[in-house]
Parts: sequence; C-alpha cells; structure tokens
Amino acid sequence: MAPRSIFLLSSSRVHGYEFLEHAKEHLKEFLSKRKVKTVLFIPYAQSDYNKYTELVENTLKPWGYKVEGIHAKSNPIQAVLQAEALFVGGGNTFVLLKALYDANLIPIIRERVLQKGIPYIGSSAGTNVATLSIHTTNDMPVTFPPSFEALRLVPFNINPHYLDPDATTCHKGETRDERINEFIEYHKKQVLGLREGTALLVEGDIATLIGDRNAKLFLPNKEQAEFAPNSDMSFLLNKT
Amino acid sequence: MAPRSIFLLSSSRVHGYEFLEHAKEHLKEFLSKRKVKTVLFIPYAQSDYNKYTELVENTLKPWGYKVEGIHAKSNPIQAVLQAEALFVGGGNTFVLLKALYDANLIPIIRERVLQKGIPYIGSSAGTNVATLSIHTTNDMPVTFPPSFEALRLVPFNINPHYLDPDATTCHKGETRDERINEFIEYHKKQVLGLREGTALLVEGDIATLIGDRNAKLFLPNKEQAEFAPNSDMSFLLNKT
Repeated sequence: MAPRSIFLLSSSRVHGYEFLEHAKEHLKEFLSKRKVKTVLFIPYAQSDYNKYTELVENTLKPWGYKVEGIHAKSNPIQAVLQAEALFVGGGNTFVLLKALYDANLIPIIRERVLQKGIPYIGSSAGTNVATLSIHTTNDMPVTFPPSFEALRLVPFNINPHYLDPDATTCHKGETRDERINEFIEYHKKQVLGLREGTALLVEGDIATLIGDRNAKLFLPNKEQAEFAPNSDMSFLLNKT
Repeated sequence: MAPRSIFLLSSSRVHGYEFLEHAKEHLKEFLSKRKVKTVLFIPYAQSDYNKYTELVENTLKPWGYKVEGIHAKSNPIQAVLQAEALFVGGGNTFVLLKALYDANLIPIIRERVLQKGIPYIGSSAGTNVATLSIHTTNDMPVTFPPSFEALRLVPFNINPHYLDPDATTCHKGETRDERINEFIEYHKKQVLGLREGTALLVEGDIATLIGDRNAKLFLPNKEQAEFAPNSDMSFLLNKT
C-alpha cells in the first residue's frame, strides 16, 4: 500500500490569475515529486468535454505534462487503472458524481488513490467528490445522482469556493455559513471551508493548508476556527 | 374539480420588511377570497418546527387567521385532507422534500390542491417543492431525498431568491445565471427567476406576477426575458 497523494483545490480560477496559475508551483512540485509525465483528466463536471480538456492541456503542456481526456478513451475503467495521475476538474458537482457512478468509476478511483498511491488532483467539484460526500457543494442540483456519497479519499467534507458572509448585503437568501450549519445540524460533522486561492495537500497521514489565505473550519458543535497558510491540518484525517 | 389557488413567494423575508410583511395585502386577499379561517403550516424545511410555527402564528394571527402546525397533528395525512389552506415555509429544500416523501404527503397535497382547489402558499423552499422539481433550488444538499421530483402544482421550475449577477465581484464561483443555465443545458426547460419581493399568483389557468420588481424568465434556448410587475404569466401554465 502506497501513501495517498491528494491535492484538493478550492477552485481552478482565482481573481487576478489565469486558469490554475495561482497553484502552478505547488502543482508542478506535486506531480514532479511523483515522476508523473501524463495526467488523466476527467472533465465530466462540464458539458463540453473536448473544450474543457483542451483548456487543461493548454495549461499543463507548457509546464511539461501530457494531458489525456478520459472521454477519449474506449475504456474509462482501464484508463484509470493505467493512469499515472488523475485530475478531476470543476463544473457541476451533481453532474460529475452521477457520471462517475454511471461509469462505475467510484470504487476504481478510490482503490487507485488509497491503495496504489496514484496522485489525485481535484478542483472545485473535483474536490467535492474527493471527500466523504457532496452534501457541502455550492452547486445547483441539476441532475439526480444515485447517492450523495462520494470517493471518500479523505474522511471529512469540504466547502470549495468558501465565501465569507457579506454584512452589507440586502439579499435574504442564506449565507454560506448558514448553509454549512444546516449540514452540521443534520450530520454533526466538521466541514473545511476553502477560500478561493487555497488548497489542501494530503500526503499519507499529513495534511497541509496551501495558498495565501486562511481556511475556516466549521466544527460539529457549530463553532468555527481559522487556520493560517501552511497550517498542519493532519488532525482532519483522523476518522471521527 | 375546483380551480387551483396557488401563491408562490420568492421569499418570506425581504429587506426593509418584517417576516411576510411585503406580501401582507396580497396574502390576506388570497385567503379571505377563499373564506379561509385556519391555515395548516408545514414547517418541515427547518429544524425547529415549534419555533417556526410560532413565528408564522405570530404573523398571521393579527391578520385574522388561525395557524396550526402539521407536526402537532397525530396524523399529518389526515391533517392535509381536512385543511382549509396549506402554507409550506422556507428553509432547506432538500430537508423539506425528503420530509414530504417520508410522510407520504406528496400525492395527498397534490390531489388536494389540483383537484379540490385547496389554497397553497409557498415561500422559498415551499415554492421550490410546488414546482416540477427541486432541480433549481439554491440550497445546499444537506440530505438525500428519494427523488428531486416535487409536487408539480405548476408545470415549470422556479428559482426563488433570484439574484442578478454582480459584475463587480472577485469571486469565481458560478453566478446564479450560470447555475440556471446548467439546469437548462440538461433539461431544456424554462425557469422563472423570482427576485426577493416578488411572487407568482396562480388562479386556475391564470398566472400573475405579484410584487414591486421584475421577474426574469430563462428560456430553453438560454435566452432571457424580463417581466414587469402584474404581468400575465399564464403562458407558463401550458404544458410543453
């Protein structure tokens, strides 16, 4: 059993940066350390697989990596079994999770990442599906997956694109904090709120906060805790 | 078969008003015209049923209506069968829909409203569940209902708390318009975006936009149309 290698980005786009640019150095180090040459990209969260894969290819190729889209493979399960590294992109989390279930990829990806140590990169929806469940996605439920249970590569939930409440708004829809607390009310489980520009790097049993902003942890008792960049977040990996 | 009487509010809270105050005159007219004395309130979208029912009671009692909470009844199905009017409140749409399925209330409410003409008031999540499906809710999917299909009291989808895109934001999460267009990409169905302060009144085959703001209709071809207050929206009731 090889230790897991997981890089979970809040988002691929951050204000002031090109696509994935904010995480370039960290992602390059993550892939190079593991001698990855080719990344298998899973574009299922968006509707135009070719266009999305092209965007990722155009970004990672200049960094020195080859990108292949899983949709271009005749056998997606075989493609995952042979992949050097997986990148699951963002879009709609419900669409993505349903596609992973429909293609019977959930157990295969889980086994490759947790047992064989194949590097996994997720952004936004790709981060949601890497966690316990998609109960803490921000996305609109445009399609009905067979379950909200996800890949469970880490034993807790993440809220990507985490956004602090805006005290000046006149809008009466729930704030992100209220929504996350509705989840906690139901499940009594912690949720890591990853602001745009941040990511969680998991290497075996060590988890580290990456990026230039704090992350906010929502605790099962509804209290909150802020964590600074580079914080050791390994305690999140203990099963509760 | 009595004609349907349905009042679907975007939200119960609007900036500058007390709970439901913005719709007071319209709601009073809606209930009085139908000689309603007692409203059966369904608080399932929130976790504290008693507190939520008390809020509605404290609001509607001064207007001249008695309020009963369905959770205080020994037999919820019987309560709906005997109700003079139903009010389904907001909170979390997933929690609400699951509770309606768990209590086997979906066919009963549908039959009472569509066949017997029992007045139905919904706000926010209570509006989502009155439509074709909850695919266009803004809420976090904190629990997994057996289906996203809803009461189908009207043959289209609504997005409550509809919020225009903010051109000044640095946040890269999807705008509401992008989310609604993800739904349309999948379903090729129209979605009525109801801004806070607006509502849709349906009386038989006549639908009217209520409130002091426009509503935005998202068309199956992804075009958009704005409708002014008091617009005749009856075309939405034609099954497509």
